[in-house]
Amino acid sequence: MDKRVGFIGLGTMGMPMARNLIKAGFSVTAYNRTSAKAARLAEEGAVKAASPADVAAVNPIIITIVSDTPDVESVVLGRGGVVEGIKPDSVVVDMSTISPEATRNIARLLGERQCHMLDAPVSGGEQGAIDGTLSIMVGGDEAILERCRPALQALGKSIVHVGTSGMGQTVKLMNQILVAGNLNAVVEALMFGKKQGVDLERAIDAVKGGAAGSWQLANLAPRILKRDFRPGFKVGLMQKDLNLIMEAAGSTRLPLPATALVQQMFRSLKAESGDEGTQALVKSLERLSGVEIAS
Amino acid sequence: MDKRVGFIGLGTMGMPMARNLIKAGFSVTAYNRTSAKAARLAEEGAVKAASPADVAAVNPIIITIVSDTPDVESVVLGRGGVVEGIKPDSVVVDMSTISPEATRNIARLLGERQCHMLDAPVSGGEQGAIDGTLSIMVGGDEAILERCRPALQALGKSIVHVGTSGMGQTVKLMNQILVAGNLNAVVEALMFGKKQGVDLERAIDAVKGGAAGSWQLANLAPRILKRDFRPGFKVGLMQKDLNLIMEAAGSTRLPLPATALVQQMFRSLKAESGDEGTQALVKSLERLSGVEIAS
Amino acid sequence: MDKRVGFIGLGTMGMPMARNLIKAGFSVTAYNRTSAKAARLAEEGAVKAASPADVAAVNPIIITIVSDTPDVESVVLGRGGVVEGIKPDSVVVDMSTISPEATRNIARLLGERQCHMLDAPVSGGEQGAIDGTLSIMVGGDEAILERCRPALQALGKSIVHVGTSGMGQTVKLMNQILVAGNLNAVVEALMFGKKQGVDLERAIDAVKGGAAGSWQLANLAPRILKRDFRPGFKVGLMQKDLNLIMEAAGSTRLPLPATALVQQMFRSLKAESGDEGTQALVKSLERLSGVEIAS
Amino acid sequence: MDKRVGFIGLGTMGMPMARNLIKAGFSVTAYNRTSAKAARLAEEGAVKAASPADVAAVNPIIITIVSDTPDVESVVLGRGGVVEGIKPDSVVVDMSTISPEATRNIARLLGERQCHMLDAPVSGGEQGAIDGTLSIMVGGDEAILERCRPALQALGKSIVHVGTSGMGQTVKLMNQILVAGNLNAVVEALMFGKKQGVDLERAIDAVKGGAAGSWQLANLAPRILKRDFRPGFKVGLMQKDLNLIMEAAGSTRLPLPATALVQQMFRSLKAESGDEGTQALVKSLERLSGVEIAS
Repeated sequence: MDKRVGFIGLGTMGMPMARNLIKAGFSVTAYNRTSAKAARLAEEGAVKAASPADVAAVNPIIITIVSDTPDVESVVLGRGGVVEGIKPDSVVVDMSTISPEATRNIARLLGERQCHMLDAPVSGGEQGAIDGTLSIMVGGDEAILERCRPALQALGKSIVHVGTSGMGQTVKLMNQILVAGNLNAVVEALMFGKKQGVDLERAIDAVKGGAAGSWQLANLAPRILKRDFRPGFKVGLMQKDLNLIMEAAGSTRLPLPATALVQQMFRSLKAESGDEGTQALVKSLERLSGVEIAS
Repeated sequence: MDKRVGFIGLGTMGMPMARNLIKAGFSVTAYNRTSAKAARLAEEGAVKAASPADVAAVNPIIITIVSDTPDVESVVLGRGGVVEGIKPDSVVVDMSTISPEATRNIARLLGERQCHMLDAPVSGGEQGAIDGTLSIMVGGDEAILERCRPALQALGKSIVHVGTSGMGQTVKLMNQILVAGNLNAVVEALMFGKKQGVDLERAIDAVKGGAAGSWQLANLAPRILKRDFRPGFKVGLMQKDLNLIMEAAGSTRLPLPATALVQQMFRSLKAESGDEGTQALVKSLERLSGVEIAS
Repeated sequence: MDKRVGFIGLGTMGMPMARNLIKAGFSVTAYNRTSAKAARLAEEGAVKAASPADVAAVNPIIITIVSDTPDVESVVLGRGGVVEGIKPDSVVVDMSTISPEATRNIARLLGERQCHMLDAPVSGGEQGAIDGTLSIMVGGDEAILERCRPALQALGKSIVHVGTSGMGQTVKLMNQILVAGNLNAVVEALMFGKKQGVDLERAIDAVKGGAAGSWQLANLAPRILKRDFRPGFKVGLMQKDLNLIMEAAGSTRLPLPATALVQQMFRSLKAESGDEGTQALVKSLERLSGVEIAS
Repeated sequence: MDKRVGFIGLGTMGMPMARNLIKAGFSVTAYNRTSAKAARLAEEGAVKAASPADVAAVNPIIITIVSDTPDVESVVLGRGGVVEGIKPDSVVVDMSTISPEATRNIARLLGERQCHMLDAPVSGGEQGAIDGTLSIMVGGDEAILERCRPALQALGKSIVHVGTSGMGQTVKLMNQILVAGNLNAVVEALMFGKKQGVDLERAIDAVKGGAAGSWQLANLAPRILKRDFRPGFKVGLMQKDLNLIMEAAGSTRLPLPATALVQQMFRSLKAESGDEGTQALVKSLERLSGVEIAS
């Protein structure tokens, strides 16, 4: 088996993912815009490349995980980008969360160069990236996925093929509709209880095992009560994902009234909340209602 | 231990709950507005009473589980009601979902007669009532709860004391904010995927184990795909509960923007959906978007 | 022409209305819960009555204008109420804003006593009441309206028969949907301009004469810029009216998503805003966005 | 006075505007993507140009009025665009409705060529364009506006300078927040009345002169009752403008909950409504509620 993998983007998610590939015996060539991070990874066994094109030139599989649609377009299609180095029949596996439509466009352009693309966004946050337990939703050709599966197995515990190119991104956006909606329900329920004078810890215990239960309730409600706003998943990223959702929904003329409202609540968070965890959403309703939840 | 329990209200929930008390060795006196149901339970070992007052006259614990606030007020305070028969130091355990404020008022009136009240609404639906696995959220005096705990243990697997009188109802309403909000997020996520052409079954599988996971997703999304609208929990009851939530929120001047919106979506369901399960909420967004989800 | 009119309710609206009747030559018998106000009106030519029943006993037309549904029910149907004194063929003209359904119920009960009822709520605020330029929306029998028209002409400039009993109230609630929706649009537009750095006074001038124009924009936007929150129409009354609207909509299973949202924004106003003018709604969006509009 | 004006974009709005310039004695050079329209205008006295660059080469003032941001960027900055022909100290007056931020960017690029830009979007619809009674909101240098005022006076009756570059567009977006919000309130009010059985024509008459009054109510409510969906202003353009609003609001982190909701309601309109008038918004609420308004 060819154990060479290129890796572009060593951020909060990318760095631990690249480390997991190294641990699993893959030979990793890495590029990062801020080169200090690539240098650090080189000390742990990776080869540092000078550009995405250089990464692509020597690897049959190139993983990208950067911030947003323009970043993927830049590292793949831009000057010094993947397309300038990629060999025919290679695969770009984009694990960023970006626009499904932009994904299909990049896949088409790679196809014109006899290359392949999978969109393989993840959920599970920084902890899942560190633990190698991410959920990976894959769009693109299923045979190509099989070729990449060994590498992906070093990164996640659930790898589900969900459809053609762009569908991985679409399912990730479905995931985010659920995450944002469930979290907002947690915030409204807690604030309701607070105003009525309920012991919120007991209330969470009483309801979390039943029909009201969710990952967001079990994991984030206790943090909200402690005002622990350290990030699992950052507000700024959720704001970006909500923009992607509403843009994609708009292009198909689909109204999503509650998601649109939750997007507005996220917009009301101040700039300084951008690096806090999504549970900081509670601050919006606190502001609107003039009441603060405290444990 | 005194094994006598009075039981008022033999509906979808009440009938299997009363049966579980009988199975657990309790001596049950039952009353139901439609007396045929009480007669049926009498064949299974209960004693049929002619009025709530008659139930109250011979039992230290009287459980009520009826439809709405006025129904509880009627069976407890009305003509032939519990108050006309109840003995001092007896306990009314109201397991209906009603207004917290009305609950406190009834508790006060019972207190003036040297009697006690617990509000003990449940979640878990008809299946939980049959299986004796309900979650029970209890408001009122903790010592009084201990007196009633053996009977409640025949009905539910989780019995949590959440505060003073009315707080059980408040926590139940928190539960319903979460249920309705999570369900609405499921509906928006599925419709988003549908419009984008996703294989919805695979999408649900890909996301349900992670941060997007919820009871509503795991249990109701598959039914939505099959257009199986048989009730676990009925639309009509959820509409009633949303009214209770918004009324209670209004009395404390608390804005709940998303819950208010979900209430409007539930309002758009036609009268004939009142007896369907809450997953019929999908019909509202189908109507608004002009697209139908089908498996 | 019989110039006798009974008048019940001498609040912000009722007092100047009763004065206008006196000025127009009507013989007014007045009752108010706080009797000092009735005493004051007596100095201006009215006769002070000890109860609504006493008002009703001597007048063929009895006008009521009190706060809310229970107040109308109390002065008409309660102990010492209108029904205890009213003569057959007399007319109760209720000019309060209350529930259409409650209105129809009161009309029915009066009908059983061979009496009539018009619902005749008003718009135009305190200034309109003082100037006698109110808009009056009348529900009930048209012939009965003709009998009362001379008195109503002393109070308003526009008297429109809009349908059967309750329809006056329904049209008033339509009026309030428009008022609240238009005002909320003003608030969002101003805040949008503020955040973008627009000169708001010029912006209002540039748009108010065209398709964006409304009474709310022309009259309340300038006050918002000056932070002049003195009431034309009070927040507390609008909150009551929004409750009536959503309750009536609910009873017909009608979703009103935007009105529901505006109701939540009004709910976020603090208790101390209850006596401010509705333009204080801007404070909700200021709170949510963390930005204050100032001239 | 130099009476030469270049005109780019002869659509529903542009064609009658260019005619008004000709009627007012201006010497018009015109370009349109579909050249048949420019040919038609040539028969009425204009000179037909082969490209935006050709228009720009011979005119000190160049008016553009095209569909959306990319169209303005294309005719001004693209191949054969205005910048390829424009002479120093000339003025581009963009009367399209586009992004304020994109406007500032184009203005900056024109400034680098020693040229000027005004953003001068309009309200008043096709009828206003024909009658020369548009409202024009102008951003940019005030002295430059004075230079262009004679031409603008042939097009509109109200010409208001509202601030620096981009501010004309911002005020136009404020205008659209008001238009959309007021229209949505009309739709909800009418549907409320319909469900309650009100005579809607009388209801409109009763409320339109007071605090509930708006241009949208006076002009579009009667059309809604007649199901006359011919455009004044088209749904498709409003959808575009709502996108611009929410994008601009997002870039300043401003929540606009009601406008976001109205945007979703507009999204629920089917593709075939794109060329109908905005009053077709009623179809969304009809769909959601399952009830149709008919006169």
